[in-house]
Amino acid sequence: MTQSYFFRHEDLKNYIIRYFTRWSVPAEDAAIAAEVLLSADARGVDSHGMIRLNSYYGSRLRKGQINPLSPMTVLNETATTLSIDGNNGLGHPISFKTMQRCIEKAEASGMSMATVRGSNHYGIAGYYAMMALPYDMIGVSFTNSGPLVAPTHGSKAMLGTNPIAVAVPALEHKPFVLDMATSIVPIGRVTVYQKEGKNIPSGWGIDGAGNVTEDPSRVISGGALMPLGGPEILRGYKGYGLGLLVDIFSGVLSGGAFAADVYGSSSQSASNVGHFFAAIKIEAFREVQGFKQDMDKLMEQLINSPKAEGEERIFIHGEKEFEKAEKSAKEGIRLSEVTVNTLKQTGHEDGVEFDLQPLKID
Amino acid sequence: MTQSYFFRHEDLKNYIIRYFTRWSVPAEDAAIAAEVLLSADARGVDSHGMIRLNSYYGSRLRKGQINPLSPMTVLNETATTLSIDGNNGLGHPISFKTMQRCIEKAEASGMSMATVRGSNHYGIAGYYAMMALPYDMIGVSFTNSGPLVAPTHGSKAMLGTNPIAVAVPALEHKPFVLDMATSIVPIGRVTVYQKEGKNIPSGWGIDGAGNVTEDPSRVISGGALMPLGGPEILRGYKGYGLGLLVDIFSGVLSGGAFAADVYGSSSQSASNVGHFFAAIKIEAFREVQGFKQDMDKLMEQLINSPKAEGEERIFIHGEKEFEKAEKSAKEGIRLSEVTVNTLKQTGHEDGVEFDLQPLKID
Repeated sequence: MTQSYFFRHEDLKNYIIRYFTRWSVPAEDAAIAAEVLLSADARGVDSHGMIRLNSYYGSRLRKGQINPLSPMTVLNETATTLSIDGNNGLGHPISFKTMQRCIEKAEASGMSMATVRGSNHYGIAGYYAMMALPYDMIGVSFTNSGPLVAPTHGSKAMLGTNPIAVAVPALEHKPFVLDMATSIVPIGRVTVYQKEGKNIPSGWGIDGAGNVTEDPSRVISGGALMPLGGPEILRGYKGYGLGLLVDIFSGVLSGGAFAADVYGSSSQSASNVGHFFAAIKIEAFREVQGFKQDMDKLMEQLINSPKAEGEERIFIHGEKEFEKAEKSAKEGIRLSEVTVNTLKQTGHEDGVEFDLQPLKID
Repeated sequence: MTQSYFFRHEDLKNYIIRYFTRWSVPAEDAAIAAEVLLSADARGVDSHGMIRLNSYYGSRLRKGQINPLSPMTVLNETATTLSIDGNNGLGHPISFKTMQRCIEKAEASGMSMATVRGSNHYGIAGYYAMMALPYDMIGVSFTNSGPLVAPTHGSKAMLGTNPIAVAVPALEHKPFVLDMATSIVPIGRVTVYQKEGKNIPSGWGIDGAGNVTEDPSRVISGGALMPLGGPEILRGYKGYGLGLLVDIFSGVLSGGAFAADVYGSSSQSASNVGHFFAAIKIEAFREVQGFKQDMDKLMEQLINSPKAEGEERIFIHGEKEFEKAEKSAKEGIRLSEVTVNTLKQTGHEDGVEFDLQPLKID
């Protein structure tokens, strides 16, 4: 039995700030990164939270592969658009500041879109989309990532798991927050099956010859993830198209790296991750109150529609995560035993001991 | 063996114009509808072409369920946005004119988005997205449609097959044109299997109790299509989320009908279909030539990547359709025997005889 550790949000935040400032990240930027990472853990998306502190960020900061000062350059700017070069800075503060600018522009112009090139892993895509919600805007956030997904008919990983996130406010109901990888599952899910010695469901991944395999190690070593939809008969080329679309907006429109060039060919390269953000002001289309009432009605139609045999509940996207976030606000943020052990080990190696007292252990 | 009939584009166009003007559609609007419908047949998307002339349009025009004059009202307009009420007009001219306005606004403002409510079936979503291409813009087109898809954990069709279309220009390569239903397959595909007495692949549809079924008639009568991804283990809730997203942009942001209310509860109702369009000027982000060169490079990376066992070619979205369109331009537009027979029968009933001479029969 593995245990769960629950920590105060402020304690974890202070730890993350200490961790990043140790690598010369300015405190303000470290605080932004902390909020993004903690929102993942609080919302139950553990795979994108504190467990990545060293592997995605610290290990690269240590080797000089991420510029801790995140010096952003504006490449191009109009009333509605913004093109940013992140100059190999930390993905979270670059993305947070870009989305803030995007929201300001949308406030004035009805909508705005921004591209970022030369960035790094920015955490959960949904965080930046959700930034638009308090302003009665729809928020959009895409990012490309290192190649893990094979195109339909292909055998080699050429595209990232390139997520699409869109957040839309409602009235009484929680906002609609779609935050989805365009692969069926992230690679971390396959790793979990491998560690547990289990077969993966047919359709998640292919081996090095491009054949569907249920052996997780053949997906991880030389194989690839399948795009949403899976095999051609279930229209996996649509998921491939969505992943490609995200790469066009994040990699090509930004003037950054795309496809197999993201994260470069050697482990020494800058990752050159690209992002895309948009903010859309609802009031530019229709009166906000009516829009939100209709969002509630749409959600209720779905929630109250007949259930399939054996199912008790139909969910709206983001609903489960909001429920987890409310629980985390009450009980503290849950970290798994694996995460705590990882933090203790890498914290020790990195010279920032993870010595926080949990609120409780369960 | 069924035969294929090949017709001159202009002959078919003139027939469609005669057909629509017979229902009091102005000639200019009829010509727009003709081009949209023929682009479907020319591109090999037969299901959305001339075969629908009576079933989607004529039968509703006859009963007064579509206003042939398509009188558009501007509900709201800013420098970047446009909200249109189609007043139950024909989907094609309304959408064509709205996308034209959208492109003009994007030319001036860098980007533009438009919503339409009170419209009808607009043909292939991709047509309107592709209108942006000659202007060096990215085009986007969504529409909702009558309920055919069940939400994950649900047993009842609550969402349309709500397509997503995005068109992006390239340099030497054909543009990227993603035009995909957010269900795995359209209902027409299931009907084909039913007519042929064959089982459908597992994952395409569910029966009335919400269980996956391979019996096409159980999907069609009381069942539902599954969203892209299929069952939960293959992340069908992502396809459900994409379909819901399209309904939010097309139905809620437009102030029109959404979910099970599209096409209303009785066969007498107005359909109140909603659309969403966007145009994004590439030059507002980066120099167009560099963008297009990178699009070519991205496509070449994918096309030239290793093939799966037994596969010879990796496709870019839209490539097959462009190849078919080129073939159609040379050989004439291919209509199936079923389509020709349908046109002859409904043309006779509707008083516009389909008496065209084919270029060839094959």
